[in-house]
Amino acid sequence: MQSIHGGDFWESLENAKSRIIDFSSNINPFGVPEKAEKEIKAWKIKYYPPLNQKKLKDAVSDYINAENAGGAKAGTGNIALGAGSIELIKNFSELFFAAKNLEKHALIPIPSFSEYERYSKLYGAEINFAEPKRDLSFDIEKIIDIMKKLKNKKQVLLFLCSPNNPTGASLNREEMESVLGAIDAAKNAAIFLDECFIEFSSQKSLCSEAAERDNLFIIRSFTKFFALPGLRIGYAISGKKTIKKLEKLALPWNINIFAHDAALACLKDKEYMKKSRTAVKRERKFLSGELKKIGLKVYDSDANFLLAENDWDAKKLKAWLLARGLLIRECSSFRGLDRRFIRVSVRLRHENKILIEKIKEYLEQERKSE
Amino acid sequence: MQSIHGGDFWESLENAKSRIIDFSSNINPFGVPEKAEKEIKAWKIKYYPPLNQKKLKDAVSDYINAENAGGAKAGTGNIALGAGSIELIKNFSELFFAAKNLEKHALIPIPSFSEYERYSKLYGAEINFAEPKRDLSFDIEKIIDIMKKLKNKKQVLLFLCSPNNPTGASLNREEMESVLGAIDAAKNAAIFLDECFIEFSSQKSLCSEAAERDNLFIIRSFTKFFALPGLRIGYAISGKKTIKKLEKLALPWNINIFAHDAALACLKDKEYMKKSRTAVKRERKFLSGELKKIGLKVYDSDANFLLAENDWDAKKLKAWLLARGLLIRECSSFRGLDRRFIRVSVRLRHENKILIEKIKEYLEQERKSE
Repeated sequence: MQSIHGGDFWESLENAKSRIIDFSSNINPFGVPEKAEKEIKAWKIKYYPPLNQKKLKDAVSDYINAENAGGAKAGTGNIALGAGSIELIKNFSELFFAAKNLEKHALIPIPSFSEYERYSKLYGAEINFAEPKRDLSFDIEKIIDIMKKLKNKKQVLLFLCSPNNPTGASLNREEMESVLGAIDAAKNAAIFLDECFIEFSSQKSLCSEAAERDNLFIIRSFTKFFALPGLRIGYAISGKKTIKKLEKLALPWNINIFAHDAALACLKDKEYMKKSRTAVKRERKFLSGELKKIGLKVYDSDANFLLAENDWDAKKLKAWLLARGLLIRECSSFRGLDRRFIRVSVRLRHENKILIEKIKEYLEQERKSE
Repeated sequence: MQSIHGGDFWESLENAKSRIIDFSSNINPFGVPEKAEKEIKAWKIKYYPPLNQKKLKDAVSDYINAENAGGAKAGTGNIALGAGSIELIKNFSELFFAAKNLEKHALIPIPSFSEYERYSKLYGAEINFAEPKRDLSFDIEKIIDIMKKLKNKKQVLLFLCSPNNPTGASLNREEMESVLGAIDAAKNAAIFLDECFIEFSSQKSLCSEAAERDNLFIIRSFTKFFALPGLRIGYAISGKKTIKKLEKLALPWNINIFAHDAALACLKDKEYMKKSRTAVKRERKFLSGELKKIGLKVYDSDANFLLAENDWDAKKLKAWLLARGLLIRECSSFRGLDRRFIRVSVRLRHENKILIEKIKEYLEQERKSE
C-alpha cells in the first residue's frame, strides 16, 4: 500500500519548475524557529545521536506540563520519542495488536489520517469506520454506540485525531470524557489520540490524563507546530507500563542528531509559540471568510488548515494551481471524501491572499469555458 | 533491554569536559565527505522528505552495481532504504519471524553485533549461538553443522556480519558459498548478511547474488564508510519479493531530508571513497603492528577497526583514556567476550599515534603500581 499524503513538495517542484508556496502540508507558516535552525551544525553528523534521550524527554515533559498546571504531571517515564509521530503510530499498533489469537478491532472515525487504517490492517485488525455528522464533525453518539457493540470483542483500539486531519474538527472536554468512559467500561479497549495539531486548537491537551492511564495513548509532533517535517521527530505520552513496552519496539538512535538538537531549541522558544498561535487563529478566520465569499463551503476548523468543498474537480484545480506556484491537498484519497474537497493550510496573510486570488481566477475561468 | 553500543560520545563529552578523539564507533576517520556536508541546508527542514525514494534508490543501485560489473544487477526493486541499517534489522526480523505458530530459530555466530539477538528475541525466535574458532574467526563447519540440525525446524535465520563487528573477521567467497548451499538445502531458511563494513574489506560484496535470491538479505550503511551516523541512513538488498514485503513495514518519510541529500552527495564522491579505502588499509596495518609491539594480542581485521586483548580491566582502561580525551569501546557487553577485550577504530596517523602512546603510558603506570 502506497502512502498518499500532502507535502509532495519535491516531486511538485520538478513539475512546477518555479518557487512554490506549500498549502498542502499543514505546517506552521512561520517555518522553523530561527533558534532551531541555528542548531543544525553539520560537523555533528559524524557522531551518533545520543542513545540516552533523557535530556530531550525532560524538556518535553516541562513543555507539556506547563500547558496543564493543575493536573497530573507527565514525567520522563511517561514519554517516548519517535522518528516522526508516524513511528509511534506503527509501534503502538504493533504493540496493541500483538497478542495472538485474539479478535482485533480498530475503530476509526472518518475522514481521518490514512496511516491509522494502514497500520491497524498490517497488524491484523479488522477496521470499523464511524461516519461523521453532516458537518463532518465527530458523531460521538455513533462512536460510543459502535464501541458498545465491540465491547465483547477481545481488543478494540479507537483512533481519534483532535483536531482532526483533514476536517479540523476537535472534540471538546465533555465529548472526550464520554469517550473515555466508554473505553473504561470495555475491558481490552484503548484510545489512540493524535494531538499533532493541538497547539493550534482552542481545546486543552489530554496529556495529563494520559500520564495516569495505560488505556490512553497520545501522540504529538514537532512536525506541525514547530515546522520540522524534514527532521522526523514526534513523541508519545501514556502510562508508564505502556511506554515501557513501547520503547522495546523503538530503534536505538531513532532521533537523528539534528532532530534532537532542533527539538531542544524549539521547546525554549516561547515567543515563537505565542506568535504562531495568534497568527494562525487570525489567518484561519481571514482565509475561511474569504473562501466562503467566493462561494466555497468551508468547514469549521480548530487547526491550522481548512477543509473546503465545491462543485469542481479538485485534481484539476490542484494541477492548475501547481502550474502557478501553489501546492494544495486534494482529498479524494481520504476515505469518506471525494474530488470535490480540498485541504489548505493556513499561511501568512500575503500568501493566503495569493491563494484566494488564484482560486477566484480559476473559478472565473471555469465559468467562462462552460 | 537497553542497547549498549560504542559511540556514546555525548555522554562521554560531559564526563571528559574536553575535546575527545572517538575510537569507539567504527566510523571512517576522514569524517563526512565535504560535498555531503555542503548539502545540509537548514531551510529544507520545513519540508517533508520525498515520499518517493526512487532517485536515491537509483543512485544506490548504480553504486553497488559498479562494484560488481560482471554479476546480476540490483535494480531499484531490489533496494529498500532504512533509518540506519538498524531499521532494516528490526523490520526484516519482524518480517521473517511474522508467521504465527511456526517454530522460529535464529542462528548467531558470536561474538557479534548485539541487535541481531535483541530483535530475534523480540519477534519470538529461539536463539542458537555458534562459537568462533580460537582466533575468533567464523567456524564455518560449526555454523553449517548447526544449520543442518535446525533444518527441520520451521524457520531459521542465520545472521552473518562480514566483516564482523567486533572481531573484524570476514568470510571469503568459498565460505560464503558453502553457507549459501546449506541455506538452499533447508526449506525455510535465510541469511541476514550485514555488510556495513564491506567497503573497508578485501572481500567482494554479495549484493549481486542477493538481487537474485529471496533467501539472502543484505544490509549496508552510510554510517560507517561515509561517516554519517548522526543522520540515520542505511539500505537493504534482496530479491524483489522480499523487498516488496519489507517496504510494507517501512515508515513513510523514514529517510530525513538531510540524510537523503547527504547520501546522494556521498555516492558521487569517488575520490573520497578511494582515499578512505587506501588510508584505512594502511593505518590498520600500522595500528595493529604498534599495538602488538606493546604486548597486546590483536586479531586479524578486514574492517576499519581492531579487536585487541590483554590481561587488564578494559573498563578501567576506558575510563582512564576518556579522562585523557580518547574514547574506546570496551567489549564486556559482547556475548563471548569479556573485560580483557577492547575495540578501537582505525583513525588517522596522528590520532592513532596518540592512542598508542596513551595505552603505553597506561600499561607502564599499571606495571609500576603493582
